[in-house]
Parts: sequence; C-alpha cells; structure tokens
Amino acid sequence: MSIFITGTGLTKFGELYDKSLLDLALEASHAALEDARLSIEDIDAIYIGNMLGGELEGASHFGARVVGALGRILPSVRVESACASGSMAAVLAKQAILSGEANRVLVLGAEKMTDQPTSVITKALMQAASEREQEAGFTFPALYAAMASAYEREFGLNLEDLADFSVSMHSKACAHPEAQYHKQFTRQQVAGSMVVAGHLRLLHCSPISDGAAVLVLESDKAAGFEMSRAKAQLEASVFLNDTPDLMQRPIQHGIPAAKMAMKKLVDKHPGIREEIDLIELHDCFAIAGFMALEDLGFCEAGKAGDFLKTSTLNVNPSGGLKAFGHPVGATGVKQLVIATRHMKKAALTHNVGGTGGSVALHYLSRVN
Amino acid sequence: MSIFITGTGLTKFGELYDKSLLDLALEASHAALEDARLSIEDIDAIYIGNMLGGELEGASHFGARVVGALGRILPSVRVESACASGSMAAVLAKQAILSGEANRVLVLGAEKMTDQPTSVITKALMQAASEREQEAGFTFPALYAAMASAYEREFGLNLEDLADFSVSMHSKACAHPEAQYHKQFTRQQVAGSMVVAGHLRLLHCSPISDGAAVLVLESDKAAGFEMSRAKAQLEASVFLNDTPDLMQRPIQHGIPAAKMAMKKLVDKHPGIREEIDLIELHDCFAIAGFMALEDLGFCEAGKAGDFLKTSTLNVNPSGGLKAFGHPVGATGVKQLVIATRHMKKAALTHNVGGTGGSVALHYLSRVN
Repeated sequence: MSIFITGTGLTKFGELYDKSLLDLALEASHAALEDARLSIEDIDAIYIGNMLGGELEGASHFGARVVGALGRILPSVRVESACASGSMAAVLAKQAILSGEANRVLVLGAEKMTDQPTSVITKALMQAASEREQEAGFTFPALYAAMASAYEREFGLNLEDLADFSVSMHSKACAHPEAQYHKQFTRQQVAGSMVVAGHLRLLHCSPISDGAAVLVLESDKAAGFEMSRAKAQLEASVFLNDTPDLMQRPIQHGIPAAKMAMKKLVDKHPGIREEIDLIELHDCFAIAGFMALEDLGFCEAGKAGDFLKTSTLNVNPSGGLKAFGHPVGATGVKQLVIATRHMKKAALTHNVGGTGGSVALHYLSRVN
Repeated sequence: MSIFITGTGLTKFGELYDKSLLDLALEASHAALEDARLSIEDIDAIYIGNMLGGELEGASHFGARVVGALGRILPSVRVESACASGSMAAVLAKQAILSGEANRVLVLGAEKMTDQPTSVITKALMQAASEREQEAGFTFPALYAAMASAYEREFGLNLEDLADFSVSMHSKACAHPEAQYHKQFTRQQVAGSMVVAGHLRLLHCSPISDGAAVLVLESDKAAGFEMSRAKAQLEASVFLNDTPDLMQRPIQHGIPAAKMAMKKLVDKHPGIREEIDLIELHDCFAIAGFMALEDLGFCEAGKAGDFLKTSTLNVNPSGGLKAFGHPVGATGVKQLVIATRHMKKAALTHNVGGTGGSVALHYLSRVN
C-alpha cells in the first residue's frame, strides 16, 4: 500500500482577530478537500494536531467540534505533543491508513494563540518544558539561548551567520501570501534588534500566530483513488519523544531524538540526504535551524553557517517558523503543505516540540 | 495478526493528594509491565489518554514527561477526546500495531483532577460541551438532567429504578480495593440525596477523581510473544465523534454515535450481544447507564430499568464511574482493565465523551 497527498489547504498565518480556532480549521479543511476534488462525505477519519485549544480557547474535545461543524459522525482524533502536534497527527493518520481502518483521512493542524495576553500564552507554552524548567522560571527564548550558548562553547557561533539565517527566512516568506510577515531585513537589522535572551535577538525568534493547515491523505487502495489527483507520496515518517528537560539530555547543542529519528529514516532509505531538494525545518529560533541541519546530518556539527552559504538545498522555502509564522499545532502540517507544493523531487520535514521532547520527520516525494 | 492484552495496571482511584499526574502514570505503567512480565525496554510506543493535564496540571507535552521518567526515547502520543480519551488511546495503539509500526505498546489513561478548586474543574470539564452550551452556562449535571427529562418525556422514568442503579454500583465497588468509594447505600438514601439538577441527585452522579490505568498490548507477531502471557484478545474497536452539542442531535434520550458504533461492531461480529457476559459502561450519571444499555441494543429503548432487574449480564462489575471513580482520561482504560480481569468469556466496554460527542467501544475475549 502507498499513501499519497492529494490535497493541501492553508489559511493566512498571523494575528487573525476575526477568526476562531474552528473558523481556521474549517477554512483549511474545505480548501484541502477542494484541492483533492473530494467532499467531506469521502473522508473516513480526521486527525487533528492542536496544542493549546484547551488552555487558550476553552476548546478541548475539539475533534467533536470539527466533525459537528462538518456535519459528519466520524473518528476525529485530537493529538497533542507540544509544537510537534501537527506532525504527530500526520504520523497517526498514516498508521490509520496502514492499519486498514481508514482509506482517506484529513490531517488538520490548527492553533489560535493571539486571543490571550502574552503572559498567558507564555505560561501555556511553557508546559512544553519540564516541570523543573517551569519552576525555575525559564521561557523558551531562555532555553534556546542556553542551547545557543552550549553551541558556542562547543563549536563557536558566528553571529553574522546566525543573522543571515533570519534574513533569508524573511526574504523567502515574501513569496507567500499566507505568510505572517512580508518584510525584508538586513543582517545589521537582525543583529541589532532587541535582545530577548543571551545571543537571541527579536529577529531570531518566531512569532505568536494563528493559523491552520490541512492535508488529504489517501491510500492507493481507496475506492475511487486516481493517481492523477496525487501530488506527493508520503514515503516514511518517524516520530520520537524524549525527556522534555534540556539538562537531562547528554548534549545541549543539538537534539538527540532528532539524530535518532534521522538514523531510523536513513536505515530504511539510505540515499535520502542526497535525494531531497527541499527541507522544511523547525526554526523556532535561528539557532534551532542550525542545529536541525547538523542533527539531520546535512553538514558536520558546528558547520551549519558555512553549509548555508554554499548548499543548493532549498532550506525553508516557506520562510520557516520565523517569517511564515508559528501557530504551534499547525506548523508540522504547514511544513508538509509547503513541501508538497514546492519540492522538485523529494522533501523532508522536521518538526520539534519543546527543546526536543518531541521530534517528527516526514519524507515525501513528488508525484505529478 | 491478533492483538492481546498481556498486562494490566491500576492505581487507587480517589482524591490522591500525595501523588502527581506523573506519579500515577508511572505507578500504573510499572504494575502493567510487571503483570506482563516485560520491562520498559520491550515497549515500542506509548499511547496516552489524558484530557485536562494542560488545564489543571500545567502538563501538556505529557508524552515527553512520561518517556523522560521511564528513561526511553520512544513515540509517546497524548490523545484527547474528553472523557473518552483513554479508550481513544487504545484505538490508536491498536492501529499502530496493525500498521506494523509497533509490536508492543503501553496504553496509559491518567488524570489528576483534585488539585484544583471545584469551580476550576467544572469550567475545564465544560470544554467537552459545545461553545453554545458553555456560553449558556450549562454544566454536565444540567446537560444529563436534560437528557433524563427527554428520556422521561419519551418513555417515562421510574426513579426507583434509577436509584437502584446507583445502589448496585456502590455495592459492586466494595469488592475493589482501588475503587474510590467503599460505602453501600439504600434506594431511599440515593433517592433522597441532595438535588444536583432536575432528576439527578448527588448519588446519581460520578465524582471528581485522580487515577491511572494501563494496558500492555502485544501483537502475536512480536518477537518473544508467548500465548501463556496473554490475558485477553482485543477483538474489535470502534471510535466515533459527533457534534458535542446535545440539541444539534436528532434525539436527546440516547446517543446517536453509540448506536452507530454498535451497529458497526455488530455488522462485523453479529453474535456479540449474546456472547458477552460483562459490560463496563459509561455511567457518568445513572441515566447514562440506562441510555447505554438501550443504545447498545441490550434492551428496548425505555426498558433499561426492567432489563437490569432480570438480566444475567454483569453490568459494571467495577462499580462504574459512579462508585469506582472517574478520573476522566483514565476511565476508558480502567474499563478495559476491569473487563480483562473479570469477564468469563467476552466483554464490551463503552466510553463516552461529553454528552455523546465521543463514543468508543471495545470488544474483547478471554484467553487464559
């Protein structure tokens, strides 16, 4: 059995004060169904990645709300694994198809974050860290700044290279009407922006966002499946969890679960790094983009800055979490949408929860 | 491929002020692993049902916390579908095994509710209802009282029969050291207890609880699988979501998704109602126990009170949600633990989220 992406849908990302979490979910779902030339009647199940619907929107039991609004009685599974919730939904949707219990599935990632004051959002997001880190008063900028410091101690950190990462993200986001920001910055503007924590300046950090993204996944065994509707094949997926506590891990200048997930993928698909032409990686902070390229073995540890100067790999054509926006539960699905739309032959998506307590990789190839 | 339950673990249910959500999860996990004669090293993935860890305990990203405490890097999936979260975790764990992506899986249901004041708990639970019901100021006792009134209008409601349901639950719970209550009541005490909403009195209502339950699921294709360790076979599972809004459904004196789920089960296993000797059903309120027996076709609509007087079916040997306790994310897994331990030949579990926005059924048979 093979699994294909036959439709993609994406809302605008940003501060969308006139749209609810459910509005966003429905808008992206209808767009993906139309793109796949299917109706909701064709769908067997919905898998939903959403982190903070309970805490920020009073919307736990969101699976029921979605099918209620779509007018169906269907399995509608909400999964949560911090900022990797969307990718995890795709992993479970794939398992549902492989198990034979579903043939056509919607994978929905959605998050509505901007209705609440920043203090509430920051506290809610900190659940992705460990209890010890919450008690110590860490924030995610502070945790990633600690990772940047560990990286600097181990390898050195060229702050011009780090700034260039953000420059590139903001430049790429300008190509997408759905992206949160359409504004270019210079290296000097990034490096001179407000200090947030340690080496991390404001323009190294991804924003708070609303948004939703949807995929239609279909088995080639589904009645009515037509290869002409397929856009991409979902070749392989790996999802792993590790302790959410940064200091409990053997290293802080990279993410062990990401290295292990990539090893699992390469064991099954040895040529994957040479084959892919596009990667959507999890740059919640610019330093995370560097660590991702190194954890996944595209370059040696400590060498991401140099790699980015010379590589032809299309890194974050969306503009990344940095400039496209980061509605946490939507991000993993949005990465898959962008990869489907923009890869030449093959793509990889890399989605992280917390500082590495969740990691998801998806490997996909172009069909039509 | 067949899927077997080889281990079960259950904590005490109740107000467990000296134990955290993670403490409960680990205690039940270790008990289930010991029961299965396995170690955590043998496990490929963990599926976790938990509804309110984010809202009440600041513990979203709970999958990462669990594997961190167990010292493994593994897929550890938290799913949420209100009070049916635990059953949904079992459905997804089964899909993971059927998909070939896992051979041995822990299914963990856990909830810690009693750390917060009642007003906070009540508000958090109301997310399982629709936005309209939240805005109108409904609580779950009020919603189930509305269902009891609809039932009364349609069929009549014998309040002595309703009281007898609670009497029976409290009597049965006395057999279990893990149950929240070990206190018997008379029909007069139940019928005369404090009015909560409409026909529902205090002793018709399940309590607020802490607790955890765990299953070990194994494929018979797993290396090292031994039939001698199998306790039950997980024959079939159905999970469905419907609108969370009671008034949007065609009837209010039963749950359409439960009827549809049972139809799906019976279509595949026609003799199931005659075969099973035990049912663990979702009696969040006594009226819900009546509706369950009718929705599942064990008796005619409106006849559950009479059915219970004469049937030999073992209904809620645990004492049900009413008397065993109802830590919401744990309940579906606890039903499976009790069914595994107490069925003679075959059992059914029935788990509901909200007023019927989620419904899960599991059908299992005894092995050793």
